[in-house]
Amino acid sequence: MRINRKRLEESMDALGRVGATAKGGLNRVALTDDDRRGRDLLVGWMREAGLSVTVDQMGNIFGLRAGAGSLPPVMMGSHADSVPTGGRYDGQLGVLCALEAIRTLNDAGAATRHPVAMAIFTNEEGARFQPAMIGSGVMAGKIPLEDAYNARDRDGLRLGDELERIGYLGSEPCIPRPLRAYLELHIEQGPILEEEHLPVGVVEGIVAISWSRVTLTGVQDHAGPTPMRIRHDALVTAAEIIGGVREIPRKIGGDMVSTVGRLDVSPNIQNAIPGRVTMSIDLRGPDERDVTQAMGLLDRVVKDAARAEGVTCELEHYWRVPRTHFDLDVVDTIEGAAKSLGYGYRRIVSGAGHDAQYMAAICPTGMIFVPSRGGRSHCEEEFTPMDDIEKGANTLLVAASKLAGAG
Amino acid sequence: MRINRKRLEESMDALGRVGATAKGGLNRVALTDDDRRGRDLLVGWMREAGLSVTVDQMGNIFGLRAGAGSLPPVMMGSHADSVPTGGRYDGQLGVLCALEAIRTLNDAGAATRHPVAMAIFTNEEGARFQPAMIGSGVMAGKIPLEDAYNARDRDGLRLGDELERIGYLGSEPCIPRPLRAYLELHIEQGPILEEEHLPVGVVEGIVAISWSRVTLTGVQDHAGPTPMRIRHDALVTAAEIIGGVREIPRKIGGDMVSTVGRLDVSPNIQNAIPGRVTMSIDLRGPDERDVTQAMGLLDRVVKDAARAEGVTCELEHYWRVPRTHFDLDVVDTIEGAAKSLGYGYRRIVSGAGHDAQYMAAICPTGMIFVPSRGGRSHCEEEFTPMDDIEKGANTLLVAASKLAGAG
Repeated sequence: MRINRKRLEESMDALGRVGATAKGGLNRVALTDDDRRGRDLLVGWMREAGLSVTVDQMGNIFGLRAGAGSLPPVMMGSHADSVPTGGRYDGQLGVLCALEAIRTLNDAGAATRHPVAMAIFTNEEGARFQPAMIGSGVMAGKIPLEDAYNARDRDGLRLGDELERIGYLGSEPCIPRPLRAYLELHIEQGPILEEEHLPVGVVEGIVAISWSRVTLTGVQDHAGPTPMRIRHDALVTAAEIIGGVREIPRKIGGDMVSTVGRLDVSPNIQNAIPGRVTMSIDLRGPDERDVTQAMGLLDRVVKDAARAEGVTCELEHYWRVPRTHFDLDVVDTIEGAAKSLGYGYRRIVSGAGHDAQYMAAICPTGMIFVPSRGGRSHCEEEFTPMDDIEKGANTLLVAASKLAGAG
Repeated sequence: MRINRKRLEESMDALGRVGATAKGGLNRVALTDDDRRGRDLLVGWMREAGLSVTVDQMGNIFGLRAGAGSLPPVMMGSHADSVPTGGRYDGQLGVLCALEAIRTLNDAGAATRHPVAMAIFTNEEGARFQPAMIGSGVMAGKIPLEDAYNARDRDGLRLGDELERIGYLGSEPCIPRPLRAYLELHIEQGPILEEEHLPVGVVEGIVAISWSRVTLTGVQDHAGPTPMRIRHDALVTAAEIIGGVREIPRKIGGDMVSTVGRLDVSPNIQNAIPGRVTMSIDLRGPDERDVTQAMGLLDRVVKDAARAEGVTCELEHYWRVPRTHFDLDVVDTIEGAAKSLGYGYRRIVSGAGHDAQYMAAICPTGMIFVPSRGGRSHCEEEFTPMDDIEKGANTLLVAASKLAGAG
């Protein structure tokens, strides 16, 4: 049994046109009209594949292919939302490979003991509503449903209202369900598979993640007549913090990464000393203790920078995800699938959060990575060669079939 | 002859209500509906004071009180627009003190040889349309009218269209006109008068100013799986530049100031490495050569920071104003007025640009400063005590009367 590369490629092209950007990327942010159009297209294909489709209270979409017995399903999935100037692979590829695996089972008339299901999770990126992975987070019982509904975007729009507006506020309870396994294929988003010329990454787990927010309040003043000696410039403090955050991984060693991704200045005009800055800090690492240590260093960096400039600071660590270890049997099954197919592979730790992270809390979970050209993602230049995608999809198909007990 | 403090205060209160913010500041950005309402109120008062009111092609408003002969007028004025979260003194105070001086001449039935005029200049702040001081700049022949009309705000709206929309696209040519003198009262916006307990600043001139824009293009990527070793982070480069810009005045010495006031990050989300940053740099100093030297240091700071991070940079010096020296006779006249009134005063150099800067190119010009509490301006906390305002307004009245040849 092998997937149909041409059919998969056609589906990628068709879905990639929904929210396509001029430069070949994707702008299909969660719960926008384009997200709705993408969901509608996928749901149509799922029905055509004979799946019974349901939508839960978080807008997560499920499609079920019946098994021989009433056993817990093997679920494959990912997300279909993108960052504002994202690429055509992050998320959407995992959903389409799951669909292609099911279509291939259908073509082969393959019966499985366990049902085989696919899932499309809501707002994985966290670009519009925070926190990220909110759909799988609620499903795993880690985020209260009401908190998720009350998440607001920058324009003040509520997630719950937007779900309803696009017609994906389902009635099925968003709660943990019995699953034989959850498998997610995703692009690596890093450079390692490409550097080592390997088509498949067997993912052992996900790095620990910490998200923090800093609010700096200085003294807004006129950029001309205010002598340097009396300034309390919130942006100068922010710059010092950005430099300090960049140094944290070097101080800790290992594979830690640190990023200031978002920064907003007020009043943000040429001739006013910035009175207020808010900024985000993202810390990640494969070692749980490293991330905890990094958070301590961040505290020091922020306090020192604020004190030096006479600016007040507020630091909130508002999201923390511990290191995720995937299920050993599922990881072995994925590795066995790649091996049996004769594909080059290596074990790898994911540097990005994925819905699989929350799913790992409620069922045996594993992931398959395919290479990202130049290690790039969350950008319009995101690209994975079709040869690698085909190998990843076949690995997903074989691993899912094995776990589902194909005949 | 002395101004009527109560009447001036009432006018300040009434005009301050147009675009008032909840915290007692002012949001009356150029060519908005509130700017129109403020202009309408002022024009009404000018007509009540018997002035003949005209509007030129840049929306600059003039009111003329006839003199005994057909000599060039003595003009007093300032601007009525504010920054988005500004205060109730910057600009509006100079316009209202000019009006109050004319009302006082009326009360006294004072005849002057030269006509006495007042002016309200369009878009002095440059908060919405750049460059700043665009109304007086066109009048002085320093900015082509068509360029001014084609200035666009962040929403892409054209200055020319907005002038027309609010009903202040006048027909009078916006060109240099014969003037006996131009006098502008303004808040200091710095701490010096307050520190020295002086109500009046006799302004000798305005610092040299340079405005630059930096565009940094790095590589947008995912904040998680992208190792530190392959990053090209535009915001890290920007932070390095902010630190370098802060150091420039220390390296040059004297009273130089440097500010990064505006910074915009793209895509500006928590989990993406910033691919693009644009930022503004404001350099000012009382010595022309210092500012030129500072621009050279800025070039080096930007290039070094960009090279260190592997980010491409573009640096545009898009606005440069040389050091302005006010007319010696006018400055002496202002000093003589303060002295004759028995007020404490000192000579001072303005750190902020003013319409007086362009007016100095077409007629003998001078300025009067009143203190700013804490040196603060361009913020809602902007404040000047009424005792000081009264003294400033009387100094303006006496100086203008002298220059106009009051009987």
